[in-house]
Amino acid sequence: MKKIAVLTSGGDAPGMNAAIRAVVRASIYFDMEIYGVKRGFEGLIHKDIFQLDASSVGDIIHKGGTFLKTARSVEFMSREGRLKAVEALKDIGIEGLIVIGGDGSFRGAEKLTEEGIKTIGIPATIDNDLAYTDYTIGFDTAVNTVIDAVTKIRDTSTSHEKTTIIEVMGRYCGDLALYAGVTGGAESIIVPEDPVSIETIINKLNQGKKRGKLHHILMLAEGAGSASKLQEELLASTGENARVTVLGFIQRGGDPTADDRLLASRMGVKAVELLKDGVSNHVIGVRKNKLFSKKIDEALKEDKVLDKELIRLAEILSV
Amino acid sequence: MKKIAVLTSGGDAPGMNAAIRAVVRASIYFDMEIYGVKRGFEGLIHKDIFQLDASSVGDIIHKGGTFLKTARSVEFMSREGRLKAVEALKDIGIEGLIVIGGDGSFRGAEKLTEEGIKTIGIPATIDNDLAYTDYTIGFDTAVNTVIDAVTKIRDTSTSHEKTTIIEVMGRYCGDLALYAGVTGGAESIIVPEDPVSIETIINKLNQGKKRGKLHHILMLAEGAGSASKLQEELLASTGENARVTVLGFIQRGGDPTADDRLLASRMGVKAVELLKDGVSNHVIGVRKNKLFSKKIDEALKEDKVLDKELIRLAEILSV
Amino acid sequence: MKKIAVLTSGGDAPGMNAAIRAVVRASIYFDMEIYGVKRGFEGLIHKDIFQLDASSVGDIIHKGGTFLKTARSVEFMSREGRLKAVEALKDIGIEGLIVIGGDGSFRGAEKLTEEGIKTIGIPATIDNDLAYTDYTIGFDTAVNTVIDAVTKIRDTSTSHEKTTIIEVMGRYCGDLALYAGVTGGAESIIVPEDPVSIETIINKLNQGKKRGKLHHILMLAEGAGSASKLQEELLASTGENARVTVLGFIQRGGDPTADDRLLASRMGVKAVELLKDGVSNHVIGVRKNKLFSKKIDEALKEDKVLDKELIRLAEILSV
Amino acid sequence: MKKIAVLTSGGDAPGMNAAIRAVVRASIYFDMEIYGVKRGFEGLIHKDIFQLDASSVGDIIHKGGTFLKTARSVEFMSREGRLKAVEALKDIGIEGLIVIGGDGSFRGAEKLTEEGIKTIGIPATIDNDLAYTDYTIGFDTAVNTVIDAVTKIRDTSTSHEKTTIIEVMGRYCGDLALYAGVTGGAESIIVPEDPVSIETIINKLNQGKKRGKLHHILMLAEGAGSASKLQEELLASTGENARVTVLGFIQRGGDPTADDRLLASRMGVKAVELLKDGVSNHVIGVRKNKLFSKKIDEALKEDKVLDKELIRLAEILSV
Repeated sequence: MKKIAVLTSGGDAPGMNAAIRAVVRASIYFDMEIYGVKRGFEGLIHKDIFQLDASSVGDIIHKGGTFLKTARSVEFMSREGRLKAVEALKDIGIEGLIVIGGDGSFRGAEKLTEEGIKTIGIPATIDNDLAYTDYTIGFDTAVNTVIDAVTKIRDTSTSHEKTTIIEVMGRYCGDLALYAGVTGGAESIIVPEDPVSIETIINKLNQGKKRGKLHHILMLAEGAGSASKLQEELLASTGENARVTVLGFIQRGGDPTADDRLLASRMGVKAVELLKDGVSNHVIGVRKNKLFSKKIDEALKEDKVLDKELIRLAEILSV
Repeated sequence: MKKIAVLTSGGDAPGMNAAIRAVVRASIYFDMEIYGVKRGFEGLIHKDIFQLDASSVGDIIHKGGTFLKTARSVEFMSREGRLKAVEALKDIGIEGLIVIGGDGSFRGAEKLTEEGIKTIGIPATIDNDLAYTDYTIGFDTAVNTVIDAVTKIRDTSTSHEKTTIIEVMGRYCGDLALYAGVTGGAESIIVPEDPVSIETIINKLNQGKKRGKLHHILMLAEGAGSASKLQEELLASTGENARVTVLGFIQRGGDPTADDRLLASRMGVKAVELLKDGVSNHVIGVRKNKLFSKKIDEALKEDKVLDKELIRLAEILSV
Repeated sequence: MKKIAVLTSGGDAPGMNAAIRAVVRASIYFDMEIYGVKRGFEGLIHKDIFQLDASSVGDIIHKGGTFLKTARSVEFMSREGRLKAVEALKDIGIEGLIVIGGDGSFRGAEKLTEEGIKTIGIPATIDNDLAYTDYTIGFDTAVNTVIDAVTKIRDTSTSHEKTTIIEVMGRYCGDLALYAGVTGGAESIIVPEDPVSIETIINKLNQGKKRGKLHHILMLAEGAGSASKLQEELLASTGENARVTVLGFIQRGGDPTADDRLLASRMGVKAVELLKDGVSNHVIGVRKNKLFSKKIDEALKEDKVLDKELIRLAEILSV
Repeated sequence: MKKIAVLTSGGDAPGMNAAIRAVVRASIYFDMEIYGVKRGFEGLIHKDIFQLDASSVGDIIHKGGTFLKTARSVEFMSREGRLKAVEALKDIGIEGLIVIGGDGSFRGAEKLTEEGIKTIGIPATIDNDLAYTDYTIGFDTAVNTVIDAVTKIRDTSTSHEKTTIIEVMGRYCGDLALYAGVTGGAESIIVPEDPVSIETIINKLNQGKKRGKLHHILMLAEGAGSASKLQEELLASTGENARVTVLGFIQRGGDPTADDRLLASRMGVKAVELLKDGVSNHVIGVRKNKLFSKKIDEALKEDKVLDKELIRLAEILSV
């Protein structure tokens, strides 16, 4: 394979730039031409494709977001749209495509494989909602962003001796709430996979107060309920008006952590090596700190389960 | 005066600890005994008062919140409650009290003066809503916290080319939105003192898009409307679903900036000097970078107006 | 005046980008064409000049360094070199030049004025070593960078109960050491303008130990001596091997603080207004939070003196 | 086992507080009494031992350093000293001791085991210099602290187009330089385990310049040479006066990252479980993200080797 391309798709995540950089540098290292596509599959359809060299990715390893940008593409949903995309690649002689994104993006990659383009997926999403891999690019940064926010909120919660509800991202997957809850020192963690009753939360709260706790942090994944509703329930049951913070989009930004840059760099290089070796229709994952790849289809079939050790840890640490 | 006390009251603000430290160190420097009161006026009533020495305030200059804690006191609202507070002070022989807080706290200080306690107020609130002073302790930190959040949000807004609404604190005073808007590079700034119509906002938005702007940041003070309502109006008028972030209580926490530590240190020393010189019933302020003090009553009468130069700056910089 | 240019020169400072942005946006606001020059006076000589529009300065307000880059120019030292620079400007029809930098850069601006180019200087240097202005762009960021480093060092110093020497920038001017010392909570501050004897330092150290201080921070401006020499002297006198940190170039980088962005924005707009009004050969300054401009020559004649109030504050706070 | 104790020893590392917190909470969870020892083995000898409860470790998970403090103990080197330590523990009825630190601390734990105290070691050092475990507590934070410094230095290096040498900690182990070099985007990484010649470095530098690189970052572990000597050699060979930053003790401080808090929490709980199960003279490690324990003696015999994958990654990414 002599010419390959890279794009980012779906929600952006810190570390995407580090992954692109690794893809570009590895391509050059292995004597391949490398192209960037702007705005994901949408840019592919509109031939927004340009060659990259080592300098194109200088000074981006530390930057959040993705300099290739990302977008949703309605046109790519139809086969007609996808054929345009394939044509755009073939016009330039590009045989392989690296897709950095989440499950939706990998489904898109699969569709392109059906049309004759070799594809490799790199998992990047702050949600860590892909079951086949221990971690996705961007997750470690998001966890650290949340716990930094918790540190700020602690200052004022301790001063006022208040209960605080922090709502974090995670529609179906509670990993961000779970990891940030355990490492942020939250007293209660509420995730969509393991709903707790309001009674349990209130018991915990009262127990903490008895023990002399000056404040109480509830970490709530958005998929497990809304912070304002929880606030109302607490008010009704305990008379305390808890403070609410909805962290929102700051969780998607920020300079990537060392871990995310490392994971992105390793995966970027591996993606190029896989294409070089003729592998296609695969996604890369990491299990027990070791990289592997498997068929997109098989990878996306796996069911995500919460880490049992972490759940137990949360229980022990919040005595 | 041989014995004085210090308390923090109302909403906490970064730099309160630095102010307490300065009060303590200056008292020792001027050979006065210094006492700390826990939980503001509430702690005064309940005699939660203890002597402080130079070491009590070691390693706190850089910490957000207030180690003396703060609380609302219903009991202090009644004269009966206040007489208890005065008694508590007199029992120990404390003649002067330094109150660190906002306008409500200063009103409390006034009431104590009426009962024979000498008082000095130090302005600390992230809202910067006191007209008589250019800046309050905590404001600079809050502005920097907001613009750091904007930097994170920029990463993802630029990657997605989206409009973002950021709601910041400020019920009656738009200073936080104005300063953070200008220094965060917001395209539109919406404050309670100077309401803009939805049409104006949309015009600005469209103008930016024409000019090739990749994203658009709207900085909204909570007192000027709700972010979710603005989101709905934008959706109805432009079809774009803007992203909303409500920064919440992270704005009240965080390590104080150098400016806030400096202002707090200067004001803390000045408060002790004023008591030493027999001044009472005064608040400290800063105007054109120079400290001054004036009667609480007069200070609280002044009307806050938005900085005209800043408004004009915002207009020029968002062309 | 219809066409003006802007360059950054000398050592870079956080906030330079914010100043360039303000210059560009104000030029557009006042209907002038605005050009950027790469690498300071060197780029002028080599005609590295290009037009800027509002978008050229999108997403740079929060970035450290200068996207126009900066360099030393030997060629500009000679009149021959300067005439080339003037020619380059005149070829494009540029009548006015805004120079962002320190005293050396302003001397360069003066020389250009002699050759018929109107010039305005904007002070940007982390050293705050210009006597005619209270603050320079970049200083507030540098102070905050230093105190953040102090916070990290406190963690380990407190754990080990050690004395720490922190060497900061400032060859002739101790402002960075003084401001960061006071706001970082240093026990001793050593600046070139006010040398202290090793005995004084040791006395302070011993006094602190007696008082139960767990650690001791010495903030040293590079111009007042070397950290390693001070370490040796302390070892010889007290037997304690103090820890040394030389902060180095991290002090010149980092995202600018809100204050630096605001100062840069205000000065950038003012520079354009001055050129528009026909003013030339002036530098902008800020005194008591108010902008002004004066002749370069007069401004550079003033003698910098340490802030007496700060010196006294440092003394009181380190009891 | 009904009563156990915990101490921190040797150089401090971010995450030590999170480990202590986990030890305390797990002890309470498993119905054991838990004691803290101040200043490591020195405090043991001087009976500086006190009982801890769940609240003693509230609000410390996010703090750098160690609230139990740490110190070197000469007295503990002698059997006499150690017998005092054992006596102090036995007086209170403490049967098991958890030692948080590095190899020296584990040797101390071994010696105590010989005298009849059950011990478990938890690895905490920013150097990551223990061969038997993939990671030690504090390492991830130190890597992130270094790359944050690199980000700041990039601003000014890019603006000036300069070569920069960054000296980081690591006397015998180059892990910090290697991980921070790869994730900070350094062009050259110099570690004690794999010395490179000055020629290789200069070749790389020249190659980068040819390719249009605007600046060049050399990441140097202190054990592989001094930054100032390297600066001299580069000046002699290339004529360029590279900029030097010696990061020093900021690398040992700072709020622990989520990863370090998680590792510390997991290891803290595991240490208590091991003592509960009667295990002694063991250290805890993590391999492929799974915790394990092994005999101190065997663990310390293993030889640390550099990660081959990382070395290769560094080579590919710096093309």
